[in-house]
Order: sequence, then C-alpha cells, then structure tokens
Amino acid sequence: MTIQPINQEGLPGELSRVAATVLGQPFTRLVGAQMSAIREGHLELYVDNREELSQQNGFIHGGVIGYLADNAMAAVAGTMRPEGALGTVTAEYKINILRPAVGKRAIVRANVVRRGRTQSVTEAKVSCTHEGEEKLVAVALATISYLYP
Amino acid sequence: MTIQPINQEGLPGELSRVAATVLGQPFTRLVGAQMSAIREGHLELYVDNREELSQQNGFIHGGVIGYLADNAMAAVAGTMRPEGALGTVTAEYKINILRPAVGKRAIVRANVVRRGRTQSVTEAKVSCTHEGEEKLVAVALATISYLYP
Amino acid sequence: MTIQPINQEGLPGELSRVAATVLGQPFTRLVGAQMSAIREGHLELYVDNREELSQQNGFIHGGVIGYLADNAMAAVAGTMRPEGALGTVTAEYKINILRPAVGKRAIVRANVVRRGRTQSVTEAKVSCTHEGEEKLVAVALATISYLYP
Amino acid sequence: MTIQPINQEGLPGELSRVAATVLGQPFTRLVGAQMSAIREGHLELYVDNREELSQQNGFIHGGVIGYLADNAMAAVAGTMRPEGALGTVTAEYKINILRPAVGKRAIVRANVVRRGRTQSVTEAKVSCTHEGEEKLVAVALATISYLYP
Repeated sequence: MTIQPINQEGLPGELSRVAATVLGQPFTRLVGAQMSAIREGHLELYVDNREELSQQNGFIHGGVIGYLADNAMAAVAGTMRPEGALGTVTAEYKINILRPAVGKRAIVRANVVRRGRTQSVTEAKVSCTHEGEEKLVAVALATISYLYP
Repeated sequence: MTIQPINQEGLPGELSRVAATVLGQPFTRLVGAQMSAIREGHLELYVDNREELSQQNGFIHGGVIGYLADNAMAAVAGTMRPEGALGTVTAEYKINILRPAVGKRAIVRANVVRRGRTQSVTEAKVSCTHEGEEKLVAVALATISYLYP
Repeated sequence: MTIQPINQEGLPGELSRVAATVLGQPFTRLVGAQMSAIREGHLELYVDNREELSQQNGFIHGGVIGYLADNAMAAVAGTMRPEGALGTVTAEYKINILRPAVGKRAIVRANVVRRGRTQSVTEAKVSCTHEGEEKLVAVALATISYLYP
Repeated sequence: MTIQPINQEGLPGELSRVAATVLGQPFTRLVGAQMSAIREGHLELYVDNREELSQQNGFIHGGVIGYLADNAMAAVAGTMRPEGALGTVTAEYKINILRPAVGKRAIVRANVVRRGRTQSVTEAKVSCTHEGEEKLVAVALATISYLYP
C-alpha cells in the first residue's frame, strides 16, 4: 500500500481538527512529518529520512523516532476525545528502541488501547523502510490527558 | 549561574569524544541544542526557544523535550562507559511531562543512576526558564546499552 | 477455552526449565499463580482471586497484577533465550492500569516483541474475568536481560 | 536510624487515613509490609525477607519489589491529595531493577515529584539491607490518579 499524505479536505470535523493541529505545528514542519492515516482510534505519521534528521551513523535520530511516537500517541487520543474536551496533552510515555532506525522512511502507527474520560492509554509502533522491507524499530506506550475548559 | 556552551577544547579525551558525538549530530544542529556541562556521570544540554521548535500554543514542542531528555540520558552514560565500549545507544526511556514547556529556554540535566557493564540506568530532569524563574517540566528514566565491537 | 494448569511433564526441555523455575518460586506459591500456557515466544499465568490478594475495595491488588505482568514478561523471554544464556532477569518494565481488577480470575498473556542476544523486549496484557466476561485491566512493556556465565 | 513501624495513633487525620488504607489491605498483610514513615509528600514501606517472598535464587522476588514501589508511590500521592479527592489509584508506573534484591530487608522511599489536581507524579527508590549495608536495588516513576465522587 502506498504511503502518502492524507487529503485533509475530505475529513469529518473532529478528525480534521486533529490533523490540522498536528500538521500545523512548527516543529512538525521543521521535522517534515506527514500524516498518512487518521480515523477514530488510529493515526499514522511518517517522515522521509534526510541528512538533517540523522545521528552520527546516518541512522534516523532517536529524537525523530521519539517525536513521531509521542506526537502520534497524543493525536490518536484526540480522535476519540470525549465531548467537551478541548485537546490532548501527553502525560507520559515509554519507548523501547528495538533496532537502529536505518532506512529511507520512518512510519509510526498509533492506536487507542483504552479510552477514558480524563485520559486515554495509547500505543505506537515505529517501523523503518529499508531496501523495500519494513522493520519494526520501536514500540511505545503512553498516557494522554484530555484538556477541559 | 550563567548557562553557556562548554569549551570543548578543554575536555579530557573521553568526555571530548562524547561531546563531539552529540554536538556533531545533524539533528542536534537542526534543533539547535548546546551542551552546557559534561563531567563523569553528569551532562547538560539546552536549547533556546524559537518559533520552529514550538507546538500549536507556542510552547516548546514535546518532541524537543523528548529529544533533550533522550539525548542527554544516552550521552551521560557515555561519560562512564566501561573499557572497550565503543558507544552508547538508548534501549528505552520513560518520560513524564509535568507542565507545559513555557519559556525562553529548556535545559536538561542528566545523571547516571547505576552504571553497569552492558547497560547503565540514567535519569534526567528538564526545566524551562520563564520570566527569570526556572521550573521543572519533565522527569525521565532510561536504560542505555553499551556497544561493543 | 478452559484455562487450566499446563502439564509440565509434556514440555520440551527448554520450556520445562522455564516453567519449573517460575512455578517453583516461593513467592509464586504464596500468590498462588498457575501457568496456563507456554510455548516459544508466548506464556500465560493466572491467579484465582481470594481475600488475601485484595486491596481495600476487594479488587485484586495492584501488586498481584504487577507480579503477574513482571513474572510473565521475564519468563517469556526465557522461552527464546539464546544459546549459552543461563536465565533471565527483569531490567525494567512499565505498566498501565486500565481498569480496576475486578473479578474472579486475573490472567496475563505475554509475548516476545523483539528477541536480542543480551536482552529481549517483551509485552503483556492482563485481563480479569468477571461475570463470565473477560476485560483488559493492564498493559505492560519490558526489557529482559539474559544472564551469561 | 532504626527502621520501625510508625505509630498510627499519633498521625493527623489525612495521614492516618492513608496509613490505615495501606496497612489494612489484605495483600499488604500477606506480604507482611510495614510503614516506617509518612508525612506530606513522603512515605516509606519495608518488608523483612523470609522464604515465602523469595525467587529461585533466594533473593527477594521482583514481585515484592514491584509491590513496594507501586504501593508507596500510590500512597504518597494520597498524602497530598487535593480537597474533595476520595483516594488514589495507580495510572501507570515504570521501574528499573538495578541489582538483585539480596538482603534481610527491602525498604522503599517514595516522594511526590509534582502534585496535580487530577493526578500526581511520584517516584520511589527501593534499597536492600545486606550485611549492615544498604544498597539501591530499584528506581521507579509513577502517575497516580485521584478519585473523585
């Protein structure tokens, strides 16, 4: 399946707001991340590797992998946010790095594990595409709080 | 105490290598992080806020906070690396966000909690300076593996 | 499917050793945990609720849920241990509690996410059976180290 | 300083309720844990090693260490609970095991890192006393939620 940016115009209101928030963040633009999927309880972000995103061995920097996981886990909670909640904020997350992030592209796929009223638990898997093969490079687990007025 | 970039030239060999690795990473330069302290078992990084590093409310993006914590916790393990180890790599970390990262500067202070032969446990505290006051914005705990030939 | 203790006698050597280690631990016997499944990369433990295992509201105590997750995540790494490794030891884990552990039985199902030579990453899901229905009460993620002579 | 059970009768109301809850839990009694300190923002539990609490090598079982850390981190949040909150519940925690839990006694010291209205972040250090010397065996970091009516 081809990975490509979503069409934001075709999204229902709630999802459209989540996508606009993530994609409009200046740091998201600095990193160059794109959103390839968004639906209730599921969200994907990806970034194409480039020299600026690398660490000392040319792998995608752990900071980029962490950014992808954190941002996707916070945003996916937004796709199921309870009525009245204004937004989401990361309370905490944990990430295990399984392999060096070698490859042309990193993609994170995030899901809601358990939706709550004040917070949701979400998880993410980050994979890298290298020589046509996709390998899992990180797994993460997060607690995301909902912001109320 | 003034926070300013370390003088790399004055560092002993081992610490000099750790500093050069961190500061030479292309992603570190993209983020614009500086190192303000390095000694055996302790390391500090900081970044001055600018529009590119922000999220939707103008706060420093969580991805930057995660980058600072992760990078400092991996690098500080390098300041105590066992003989024969070539470098360090993050096995995993967990981070709790305590407050929005509001302010002109974010600084991370990392320490080695327990040094091991195959891995060390390290911790970090991230603070933001806002209107002359420094507030703790995140705490993190990591497992850092040593790489051997 | 009925949940019942495995038949230890029918197990191949490696799995038999893992099962004997877990089930022979005095603390496992104090808690009263049983093993209901073991195969390469997968392992299940369960415990029937009783007054001694409860907290102040009669739910299964978080310490029991943590014990189940930790023990299963360490043991499942043992089912795929590399040649020469003598055993496994938990380096760290993180657990999210999703719901109160209400019910007659708690069961943990653990899997290996990524097997390594010095350590493996494993995950676990803990569910409780209440009024004939099974609900997910906790998810966990661990780093398990292999012990070598 | 001698480690001994607190005198529950001398405690102010709020702390008295926290102590009574922890010490009255059936699982706490099964493990045999005692509380050696409680004040606003700080709490200590300990357990004397005995055969029932051990794993296969005679060390204190990781499940006991996890129980001590989890319970102390949840209870310490209770010592600073906001007005109107009925109690505390562990949302999540992460624990790093630094050394085998060898010794006659394990003690956990927990502190509040950041108090919030809906949840607090707390941390714990677990040490073991062996041959008259106390060694750090685990560090942990938790998110504890407050329960409201």
